[in-house]
Amino acid sequence: MQVSFTAADIAAITQPKSMRGATSESIRGLAALADASAGDLTFLGNPKYKSAVAGTRASVVLLPADFVGEPAPGQLFLLVENPSVALARVCARIEQWLWPKPAPGVHPSASVAADARIAATATIGPLCVIEAGAVIGERVHVQAQVFVGRNAVVGDDSWLMPGVVVEAECEIGRRVRLQPGVVIGSDGFGYEFVQGRHEKVPQVGNVVIGDDVEIGANTTIDRARFSRTTIGEGTKIDNLVQIAHNVRIGRHCLICAQVGISGSATLEDCVVLGGQAGVAGHITIGKGVKAGGRAGLNADLAPGSFVTGNPAIPVMLDRRIAVLNQRLPELFRRVGTLEEQLADAKKSSS
Amino acid sequence: MQVSFTAADIAAITQPKSMRGATSESIRGLAALADASAGDLTFLGNPKYKSAVAGTRASVVLLPADFVGEPAPGQLFLLVENPSVALARVCARIEQWLWPKPAPGVHPSASVAADARIAATATIGPLCVIEAGAVIGERVHVQAQVFVGRNAVVGDDSWLMPGVVVEAECEIGRRVRLQPGVVIGSDGFGYEFVQGRHEKVPQVGNVVIGDDVEIGANTTIDRARFSRTTIGEGTKIDNLVQIAHNVRIGRHCLICAQVGISGSATLEDCVVLGGQAGVAGHITIGKGVKAGGRAGLNADLAPGSFVTGNPAIPVMLDRRIAVLNQRLPELFRRVGTLEEQLADAKKSSS
Amino acid sequence: MQVSFTAADIAAITQPKSMRGATSESIRGLAALADASAGDLTFLGNPKYKSAVAGTRASVVLLPADFVGEPAPGQLFLLVENPSVALARVCARIEQWLWPKPAPGVHPSASVAADARIAATATIGPLCVIEAGAVIGERVHVQAQVFVGRNAVVGDDSWLMPGVVVEAECEIGRRVRLQPGVVIGSDGFGYEFVQGRHEKVPQVGNVVIGDDVEIGANTTIDRARFSRTTIGEGTKIDNLVQIAHNVRIGRHCLICAQVGISGSATLEDCVVLGGQAGVAGHITIGKGVKAGGRAGLNADLAPGSFVTGNPAIPVMLDRRIAVLNQRLPELFRRVGTLEEQLADAKKSSS
Repeated sequence: MQVSFTAADIAAITQPKSMRGATSESIRGLAALADASAGDLTFLGNPKYKSAVAGTRASVVLLPADFVGEPAPGQLFLLVENPSVALARVCARIEQWLWPKPAPGVHPSASVAADARIAATATIGPLCVIEAGAVIGERVHVQAQVFVGRNAVVGDDSWLMPGVVVEAECEIGRRVRLQPGVVIGSDGFGYEFVQGRHEKVPQVGNVVIGDDVEIGANTTIDRARFSRTTIGEGTKIDNLVQIAHNVRIGRHCLICAQVGISGSATLEDCVVLGGQAGVAGHITIGKGVKAGGRAGLNADLAPGSFVTGNPAIPVMLDRRIAVLNQRLPELFRRVGTLEEQLADAKKSSS
Repeated sequence: MQVSFTAADIAAITQPKSMRGATSESIRGLAALADASAGDLTFLGNPKYKSAVAGTRASVVLLPADFVGEPAPGQLFLLVENPSVALARVCARIEQWLWPKPAPGVHPSASVAADARIAATATIGPLCVIEAGAVIGERVHVQAQVFVGRNAVVGDDSWLMPGVVVEAECEIGRRVRLQPGVVIGSDGFGYEFVQGRHEKVPQVGNVVIGDDVEIGANTTIDRARFSRTTIGEGTKIDNLVQIAHNVRIGRHCLICAQVGISGSATLEDCVVLGGQAGVAGHITIGKGVKAGGRAGLNADLAPGSFVTGNPAIPVMLDRRIAVLNQRLPELFRRVGTLEEQLADAKKSSS
Repeated sequence: MQVSFTAADIAAITQPKSMRGATSESIRGLAALADASAGDLTFLGNPKYKSAVAGTRASVVLLPADFVGEPAPGQLFLLVENPSVALARVCARIEQWLWPKPAPGVHPSASVAADARIAATATIGPLCVIEAGAVIGERVHVQAQVFVGRNAVVGDDSWLMPGVVVEAECEIGRRVRLQPGVVIGSDGFGYEFVQGRHEKVPQVGNVVIGDDVEIGANTTIDRARFSRTTIGEGTKIDNLVQIAHNVRIGRHCLICAQVGISGSATLEDCVVLGGQAGVAGHITIGKGVKAGGRAGLNADLAPGSFVTGNPAIPVMLDRRIAVLNQRLPELFRRVGTLEEQLADAKKSSS
């Protein structure tokens, strides 16, 4: 990171109630208390790390207003109402700097169909392709080398990062972020086995993505066989996730990396799936279900369930079985001993 | 979907034996019986849903010729020989509309080597790169932002969707569809550990893909160390699948999403692998083997096997063990009880 | 492969101690002893395959200097100090031919910011985007349709293959190879659940990749929340791997395909993770740990551990449990029998 703030900049952003000490270092990085060195900003976000403050080598430390202690020489303490909130303000400033607002307009190297409708406030970056009939909303940022297919719609304030593909007819909501390499609207995986060959079932539906959705790098979402594959408002999806055709995902779900969701599965609102979990086809995962990493969900789950394991079962049972599994060698020995004892008992009693 | 058919259009496509009722709605979507609303086409594909016909709100319903029942007001019944076939005809029509045949020729923004051989009937879309010596067959559609490397060959009637990468020397058959973001011919993962470092083993083979293969979005297929990685005719591969170097996949296989196949594994013809399954290196999976989702195949499998679980075992055994596993707490209790009873018995007999 | 060598070319490259026989075939391929046909080069790399030499149909065979046996008619034996080393020399020659050194310079179709710093010896291929402030080192090959974001740095002699995305501020070392579709610096997956919605935690760190790292096709590496996600020198990463924000990977690790590593996990040096393994967040995997394919690492592991299974446990225990698991039906029967016998014994003794 080539960030550079003065101590005064940080104070202006975080609005401390008071300060202790001083530093002449410019702030060029952010780091945890224990990892920080001169030129870093750090913070005490969790009181349990209070003792680490004395040892930190950061030049500026964000601390709760009631913190007791003095800075080292060349170190500045900023005492704020909430160090986490203060840090978030610094990060938001850095984010603006990392990702400056692009100027509106279409880059001359982009290939834009004559009848695509591009809002005047939108930015179409270098080497993008926008096909016929596509609609690009206000302040949308189509960053670079992005493909937007025929009649696709991208809602206001969305951001399509480099290499994103949005296939024909798909609809992206407002304030959606698609990380690099995302594919929206690839064909669903549907075939009929006819006379020894897999005949393709046409996939003529689309994908509809709600407002405030974020989708991680190289994730793929298939278009529906017909009708639509849907991702509800506010849902966040991590990298390398596979979402098959006709899946319906509710609002405010969290889908961690490398999850796979099979065709026609339904996730109700606020479902959380840990990394590498899998969901079988045609099942319904109830509202607020939580599934651990690598869980294999192969049947309907009632709202509010918390499951782990493969096949996924309630977390407490799964943990207990994991422990008992490791005791199987012992159990086999115990049963063997019982069998011997019983055989001896029989012998001696006969 | 911005489909729009009149009822007369649908009748012309599906050639019904008879009709009942009438609708003035234009048909703008396809949906299942229970989900359909006015303006939708629906169908009765499976007799077990017969009772849902009475309640459907679709404007046009495809029904078997012997269906008994009357349409609601403003609803049209089309009685056809096979509703599924009739629907497929409508979908095929929509598919043509979704993906109109592109005009042949090379887009001016594409970067095509002087000595690449492009058939006159092929289409090279915007911002594609075709390198020296590459051969693009008749009616091939290289859609947009695609890379075709040196001396690679793409067979007649194939379709490379946006962002596909076909590396140097790889060979793609006829009527092959590569979904967006597919990578063909990345280096195999081969190193030798020499003096504390991993030295790269050159990967100088290629990938050869048979006719009528389809490969899903962001799937990766590595080039062979030497010789070739092969995908047999008619095999269909889903999204985010990894196929390592020197793998040999037979004809008419189905490989679901997120499967990983390790180096030098062989799949014979008609193998079906469920989502997120894994295949170890250097093993052979016999003809017609079926493996469930998330199965871990770590040894040769005889033709026709049906396995699940990790490590994969015959499906009936795996299911039985899954049930017994959940009864482990009970089994431990039962063994504890036996031990107590035997200890009591001993005590009382001594 | 459209390789073509004469037998004399192969001899010149491999410098044999002696030769037996002769061939007039041109060498157009490489294959294993059993698979080779006329026009192929093969080799005896492992003495246990010695008996396969007599049956090979290869035109040229690399053999150890002390090999006893005569070539078939039209077959040439080259007796060399080390056949594997000799083969590697041939492969290295093919590699140069497969991937000829590109001429330095910026392709006219690339979009390069005025203030990007591109070394005079670097190659920027067609349709690449290099943003403001980016630094491209000596002899770097940015192949085609690659994106290098603002202020990103690519070290000397690195090679970015088609479709690679390196986001703003990320740092790539020297002699790094990024296979097609790699994404470096996508946002980490971090949200806070506030009033029923997931609020994005800004991800303002970067990714720092050491020298001699290789990263497989469509793999994704997220930028840190703040500070950096790091990949140590000499580490090799396969295809479709997910590395989350703030992960720290040591030097000379091997990460096989489809592995997922969760946020803030640490891998020390020389860790080896089999395909589809998963690592939980915030844990430390000690130096030299080996984990089998599909292992689920959910707790710290001491240096040198060898684990398999999910949750991962020491390999010997995991294997024993896998065997005992398959004997569960038997164990349940044995316990049932014991219960009956004890009930009978009680009855008869009462």
